[in-house]
Amino acid sequence: KKKKNMPRYDQMPDLPEIDFSMFAENRAKFVKGMAGQQGVLLISGGQSKELYDTDREVLFRQESNFYYLFGCEAPDCHGAIDVATGKAVLVVPELDEAHAVWLGSVLSKAEWKAQHQVDEVVYTHELEKWVQTHYAGKPVHILDGVNSDSKSHVAHPHLPWVAALNPVTAVAYPVLAECRVLKTEKELRLLRYVNKVSSAAHVEVMQQCRPGIGEFQLESLFLHSVYAKGMCRHVCYTCICASGCSGAVLHYPNNDKMVGSSAMMLMDMGAEYHCYCSDITCSYPSNGKFTEDQKLIYNAVLEANLAVQRAMKPGVSWTAMHELSYIVMAEHMLKIGIFKAGHTAREIVDCDLMGLFMPHGLGHLLGLNVHDVGGYLEGNPSRSQRPGFRSLRTARNLEAGMVITVEPGLYFSKVLITSALADPEKAKYLNSDVLLRFMEFGGVRIEDDVLVTATGSENLTIVPRTVEEIEAVMAGGEWPLGKWF
Amino acid sequence: KKKKNMPRYDQMPDLPEIDFSMFAENRAKFVKGMAGQQGVLLISGGQSKELYDTDREVLFRQESNFYYLFGCEAPDCHGAIDVATGKAVLVVPELDEAHAVWLGSVLSKAEWKAQHQVDEVVYTHELEKWVQTHYAGKPVHILDGVNSDSKSHVAHPHLPWVAALNPVTAVAYPVLAECRVLKTEKELRLLRYVNKVSSAAHVEVMQQCRPGIGEFQLESLFLHSVYAKGMCRHVCYTCICASGCSGAVLHYPNNDKMVGSSAMMLMDMGAEYHCYCSDITCSYPSNGKFTEDQKLIYNAVLEANLAVQRAMKPGVSWTAMHELSYIVMAEHMLKIGIFKAGHTAREIVDCDLMGLFMPHGLGHLLGLNVHDVGGYLEGNPSRSQRPGFRSLRTARNLEAGMVITVEPGLYFSKVLITSALADPEKAKYLNSDVLLRFMEFGGVRIEDDVLVTATGSENLTIVPRTVEEIEAVMAGGEWPLGKWF
Ligand SMILES: [Mn+2]
Ligand SMILES: [Mn+2]
Repeated sequence: KKKKNMPRYDQMPDLPEIDFSMFAENRAKFVKGMAGQQGVLLISGGQSKELYDTDREVLFRQESNFYYLFGCEAPDCHGAIDVATGKAVLVVPELDEAHAVWLGSVLSKAEWKAQHQVDEVVYTHELEKWVQTHYAGKPVHILDGVNSDSKSHVAHPHLPWVAALNPVTAVAYPVLAECRVLKTEKELRLLRYVNKVSSAAHVEVMQQCRPGIGEFQLESLFLHSVYAKGMCRHVCYTCICASGCSGAVLHYPNNDKMVGSSAMMLMDMGAEYHCYCSDITCSYPSNGKFTEDQKLIYNAVLEANLAVQRAMKPGVSWTAMHELSYIVMAEHMLKIGIFKAGHTAREIVDCDLMGLFMPHGLGHLLGLNVHDVGGYLEGNPSRSQRPGFRSLRTARNLEAGMVITVEPGLYFSKVLITSALADPEKAKYLNSDVLLRFMEFGGVRIEDDVLVTATGSENLTIVPRTVEEIEAVMAGGEWPLGKWF
Repeated sequence: KKKKNMPRYDQMPDLPEIDFSMFAENRAKFVKGMAGQQGVLLISGGQSKELYDTDREVLFRQESNFYYLFGCEAPDCHGAIDVATGKAVLVVPELDEAHAVWLGSVLSKAEWKAQHQVDEVVYTHELEKWVQTHYAGKPVHILDGVNSDSKSHVAHPHLPWVAALNPVTAVAYPVLAECRVLKTEKELRLLRYVNKVSSAAHVEVMQQCRPGIGEFQLESLFLHSVYAKGMCRHVCYTCICASGCSGAVLHYPNNDKMVGSSAMMLMDMGAEYHCYCSDITCSYPSNGKFTEDQKLIYNAVLEANLAVQRAMKPGVSWTAMHELSYIVMAEHMLKIGIFKAGHTAREIVDCDLMGLFMPHGLGHLLGLNVHDVGGYLEGNPSRSQRPGFRSLRTARNLEAGMVITVEPGLYFSKVLITSALADPEKAKYLNSDVLLRFMEFGGVRIEDDVLVTATGSENLTIVPRTVEEIEAVMAGGEWPLGKWF
């Protein structure tokens, strides 16, 4: 069973080099967005952390805003950018001989500067003085804002003396978030690569899936594939490897069950490469052969996914796309008989019934975070309060250069269905006997990472999607993945 | 190349069940150590965390003290133990329907209680009232102490109202740390298992190692092996997969180099199973065949490791074991000619030269932390200030039931050797021409996890150790691993 273009586990992968001019380009975009402002932006990268009171180091992952501007993957660094001129200063800790013995080579300032293509390098302990010297009386900008997914505040710089400078908090964050929404060609190169690595790993997992295997064994294989074949040391979220009923648990975290004999698999897994994320979900039967019921649900979701991708283009509202996916799936569910005959798909959606079966949003911006920033920035449509729509991570109109996930799903959640059947206003639309047939089904989600282009959309995800493709690949068929493999 | 007793990647492993009476036993030990005290211990488990400002959940790993007492692996829990009677109360968050939809089943109090074999379960929001009701006017104990490896303080309970109770901070921490030093049979069962899982994974990596492979590909294989074959989702420290020169960097973190053609590999990797840790280092030539120089250094370290294991038994000082390893290696290094002829091993050690080649301690206690607690508790020998000895993570006398790593090593660190050659007091003992031969060597570490028994020691680690064993296994030979595989 040799796969076309599939790399081996013991072969150094053909990796896209990180071109540091990419970060200079990002800084230039940011400075352009700061037009009319004076002074300096101070920003901190992530800090090295130990687990609880122990000396067990947590594997470091850089903070995304800092990475976007500097491309620096070392912990305990900072950065300064002159918001008028774009001059960029990387701020690094001064390391000693103990560091060299325990953690490896200590770079000189010149080496840091050359490697990161910045204008100057200063040590952390020199920074306060440097700011006083160069920016006395001028504004110091810092990031300040709330992540619309987590509701957490972005951290202020980890520099105790900054607060005393009365930094300007209102300007930089939305500018930077907006920059991150529209991807450059250099960013797209990495997003395409990491999508291909994750796609290949999904195909591998699909081909190893069989009744009796452990969900965690499939997760383990995915992690191994993206790291050994793609040099992706991190995944950008905990893998969801759900079989059977667990597929209805949206962020099923355990992956500790044995896979059943004709269980529906819901596999949501994505690697990251140099902080750039992918987010792919494949759904398929554990034994490689769809039952009639599995086909019915699967095709409802697939047609919603495809209808959305066909409709996507600049100017289109994401909320409208979410609704389109509901309409397409409601039509199928009427045919299947889950909803009682005599109703239309439009009625089903208008009565807010689809949120019972897909309680999450259609998709989210993707970039340096798996749920990327910019979903609800000022000047864009705000979050809906409507059931089934309020979980949308953005309600924006699409623009060329956005990368967004398209991930419709249908889930048979016992909790939600039981409470709907107990509510006469909802129960009157539902065929409880048909629903009963699907109570152990779990769920289907079909998630692609899609670039909005000038004229439409381009799918970055390259996995088997039709029933025929999936059955062929699971039976050992080839799956072509193109260059970089 | 079929390996005897080696599990497959797609076969559910034969896992040791977690017997919750183990934690009742741990609590009883703790209560015995608190003899004479009244009141209640309040302790918090770890909290769920998101990365920076995002909603990306960090894969949860329970805090070790809380796990030791309750065996609970869920985040955001707490516990209470009556220090006089041992009555145990598990404190859990009250979860809602949204949790059921997104993260899975919501347990009832009765289910929590049965699963964890505790006396009572209360919700977090009920705990303050519960403490007032049952412990008004009685002491509230909390853990308070400094981890001797990280120098970090153990966290106080994450319950804002506890501080107002004037909790007793002086008593519980050293009692609990001392309990954790001596392992019960039930703990040893898990420690043996996780050592076997890690041993098997080391053997697999060894057999896949070859020039041209990426260090990260070997790390990836280890992670896959312990997770898919042993259901170990975590490793208890970041894998060190160092080839060639990088072997001299003690905590080499990157694993991003391509393996050279006859490079010395230094592979320090250990899985954890339900929070119980393993910590194993194997060193071998990348091409499976030792050069004469590699044999010389390797055997110096191996003889030190074996000499220590032979000498270990209750009452023996760990500092003396550290010194013994220095003496054995100094003898070899005199023969190799690294030290100038005319000196004795004793002289070399007394002049503090061995710390140049092994700048870390001989080993550390192992248990729920890879660098386990209890290394420098009051009433035991305190930390030495002597070069080469001050990095020892414990200076205790051995006791039956301790598990401790034995990990002598020899490293050719350019930083340390260069500065030693520039210091006439040190340079006079060193043959710079012989040292030059080893400047690109990297390092060798041989690390086993060893149980102190009533009469001696028992090695829990089961990997090829002699030159002959390593060459045979790397050539495809079988390696027997015994039960559980
Ligand atoms: Mn997604
Ligand atoms: Mn160790």
